[in-house]
Amino acid sequence: MKRLVALALAALHFPLMAQTAPDAAAVAQLRDGALNDTVAWDLVEGLTSEIGARPAGSVAERHAREWGVAKLKALGFANVHIDEFKIDGWVRGEEAGEIVGPNPQRLALAALGRSGATPAGGITAEIVRFDSLAQLQAAPAGSLKGKIAFVTHRMAPTQDGSSYGAFGPIRFAGPGVAASKGAVAILIRSVGSDHHRMPHTGVTNFAKGVAPIPAAALSVPDAELIERLTTRGPVRIHLTLTPRNAGVLTSGQVVAEIPGSDPAAGVVVIGGHLDSWDLATGAIDDGAGVAITTAAAKHILDSGIKPRRTIRVVWFGSEEIGGGRDGDGYQQSHGADNNVFAAESDFGADRVWQFNTKLPPAAAGIKARLAEALAPLGIAAGPGEAHGGSDVEATIAKGAWVVDLRQDGTRYFDTHHSADDTLDRIDPVQLRQNVAAWTAMLAVVANAPEALAPAPKP
Amino acid sequence: MKRLVALALAALHFPLMAQTAPDAAAVAQLRDGALNDTVAWDLVEGLTSEIGARPAGSVAERHAREWGVAKLKALGFANVHIDEFKIDGWVRGEEAGEIVGPNPQRLALAALGRSGATPAGGITAEIVRFDSLAQLQAAPAGSLKGKIAFVTHRMAPTQDGSSYGAFGPIRFAGPGVAASKGAVAILIRSVGSDHHRMPHTGVTNFAKGVAPIPAAALSVPDAELIERLTTRGPVRIHLTLTPRNAGVLTSGQVVAEIPGSDPAAGVVVIGGHLDSWDLATGAIDDGAGVAITTAAAKHILDSGIKPRRTIRVVWFGSEEIGGGRDGDGYQQSHGADNNVFAAESDFGADRVWQFNTKLPPAAAGIKARLAEALAPLGIAAGPGEAHGGSDVEATIAKGAWVVDLRQDGTRYFDTHHSADDTLDRIDPVQLRQNVAAWTAMLAVVANAPEALAPAPKP
Repeated sequence: MKRLVALALAALHFPLMAQTAPDAAAVAQLRDGALNDTVAWDLVEGLTSEIGARPAGSVAERHAREWGVAKLKALGFANVHIDEFKIDGWVRGEEAGEIVGPNPQRLALAALGRSGATPAGGITAEIVRFDSLAQLQAAPAGSLKGKIAFVTHRMAPTQDGSSYGAFGPIRFAGPGVAASKGAVAILIRSVGSDHHRMPHTGVTNFAKGVAPIPAAALSVPDAELIERLTTRGPVRIHLTLTPRNAGVLTSGQVVAEIPGSDPAAGVVVIGGHLDSWDLATGAIDDGAGVAITTAAAKHILDSGIKPRRTIRVVWFGSEEIGGGRDGDGYQQSHGADNNVFAAESDFGADRVWQFNTKLPPAAAGIKARLAEALAPLGIAAGPGEAHGGSDVEATIAKGAWVVDLRQDGTRYFDTHHSADDTLDRIDPVQLRQNVAAWTAMLAVVANAPEALAPAPKP
Repeated sequence: MKRLVALALAALHFPLMAQTAPDAAAVAQLRDGALNDTVAWDLVEGLTSEIGARPAGSVAERHAREWGVAKLKALGFANVHIDEFKIDGWVRGEEAGEIVGPNPQRLALAALGRSGATPAGGITAEIVRFDSLAQLQAAPAGSLKGKIAFVTHRMAPTQDGSSYGAFGPIRFAGPGVAASKGAVAILIRSVGSDHHRMPHTGVTNFAKGVAPIPAAALSVPDAELIERLTTRGPVRIHLTLTPRNAGVLTSGQVVAEIPGSDPAAGVVVIGGHLDSWDLATGAIDDGAGVAITTAAAKHILDSGIKPRRTIRVVWFGSEEIGGGRDGDGYQQSHGADNNVFAAESDFGADRVWQFNTKLPPAAAGIKARLAEALAPLGIAAGPGEAHGGSDVEATIAKGAWVVDLRQDGTRYFDTHHSADDTLDRIDPVQLRQNVAAWTAMLAVVANAPEALAPAPKP
């Protein structure tokens, strides 16, 4: 009886739902209802409290998948399942560093993902300082033989996260460059915008044929200490890092659906990544993204109206360390599906301030409808083109269209990949704004009457 | 020649210096000159960069004393020397904690000073949660047998530091209370106002006859995690702490003077403490206090005019862990001197916002002159009486008068006693305001024509 009343009420607001897209008023109603969301907080609070850190390939990541299946079923989603895939594992070991006498000082540091190892007793060597990746690249071949490269920088916070693009290569590429020039190890100033004794880890890459060297991030205050000491004279460091390649491990993704009314209209893929770094509970990276996208889908589900397109929520696996042995995990299991649209949330939990789109020319109306639906949340259309992120890039490369709901990144790199990535970083009000934005976006995109035929290959 | 010109210029502003106190204009000139101070920054930068952490009784603390003697001599102070004294040492060992399965989570924690030790392999026990020290105190005798007490709270920042007074007893006294009720260990939420994975250590006290138990502070986010888990069911913790009492160790203070023109007028004792906790470089606790008070004295010294009273700068030792075997270190060496006034700086490096005094009734003019000299720095007289702090309390108890230059403590307990106590916490502009305030205070107090006879015993 209650259910019939609810359906009747819903029908008042979605008068033509089975036939056409919800009108602007109906989208607005869904959006504003989502501003009272409790699902996202419950998910990220539960995941960080009950599971905690869940590095790819770990028992904790498996527990998180099982936890997710139970949650997604309880929320009422269809086709809830796990797709496993294999990765090349990497596991952190001991890590310690100190400036060597006359007055020794301990350093706060963390190995980078895929770092090589020192002997168990560590190594001692003098550092050579570089103030940019370009300086390191300009060092003569062999000039770092027997030395520890130290690369520092001045990354500052940016709302759009662009400073990560500018300074991130010190982490992504710096270790490989240092190794190629004979360095016995590399220490970088964390790619972070905070001033806490919190090293920021993250994966690095060694080109084929370059043997990995020990590579670690120093906390920003520790890097600044070394900067000051290099103005006084030579600096010697004792460094112990014992990470190891852990062989083939199992990761996987959790998938849940709201089946669409029009199977030919394709699948809308949304989600965040379930794995986290090992140093913290992965609240903003990326428990929040998992929670926001799932909560938004739940609001569509609870409207009682079937969307035109199937909405597929994916809690991706092994985003951080990567290392999938057979390519993209989602494409392995669902690459043959008609994935017409993909979007991810993987930039924390602060408010969405801008959106970008990449849509077929004939579907420009979607952008206009998004602009109308998102403006009351303080979200304006940006000048750029949407491009997604690492969890959906393979799917976008195969032709899926995309919307980026861009979150405010001003605080993000204070915490990103550090031990500080805990629940207290999340502002519940901004989290709910995210859920409302995603709910509105899903209501528009999943129901769009326009065709979303595969994009031309980039 | 240059020197003669400088003296002649100074004489214009201090026309009667040898005879009477500098007038308000001369004090203002000294104060405003100190706003351009570079000495304090150089001292705290040097101490934190070249020495780093310097726990009482350590080799590093000894190096810091030797470093201090060289600096103070180079600055031109007289009678520079070290007074050694003996302490009961305590040394941190290994420390690790984790929530025990089904989904284990590592905890960020640090042993409290004077903590007992677990066996090398650690202990595993269930926690009993208390939300205040009063709740812990109300637990029935023996009710904690075999349990780990967990005491949490909601300390918030306060400008005057009063929340440390309210919540600090959880650290000072909580472990002793838990031990007396049979607990096998205690974990407290750090007495800190931040939200970082940074445990705040600090000394605790076990009453005579109470055997110390392992006692550690959890970072605030870790304490909040445990709070959330206690709402779900029992929480078991595996805890390893291996600190040890290190026997009799040598600490000491560094002393430097500006001899006064009137030996009968007594000694003005100022300073901060040189020792720090072991987790960080002790920038705000208390490199800043050492630097501020020394820099202020240096401005008096550089004025070229001998103060009426001897100004004695003391870099105190073993403030943090305490444990002096023969009472107060300063009183051991200088208790017989005519210490008529004592003041310390030990609350970080943020701006002075208020001053309090405790002065002889016949010297009320000093307070009025301080009010005039400090007002342009944004410092107003407070309603309370000055009381100094732990480095000068024994000297005050013997009758010294005192002024408190109260620093803004709003940020202080974000960092206090944690690994985050590093140079970047110090705002150079606020540091210079401190130096200016201390310079003005010294100019007024050291030259005051009023008598500063010993205060009646409290």
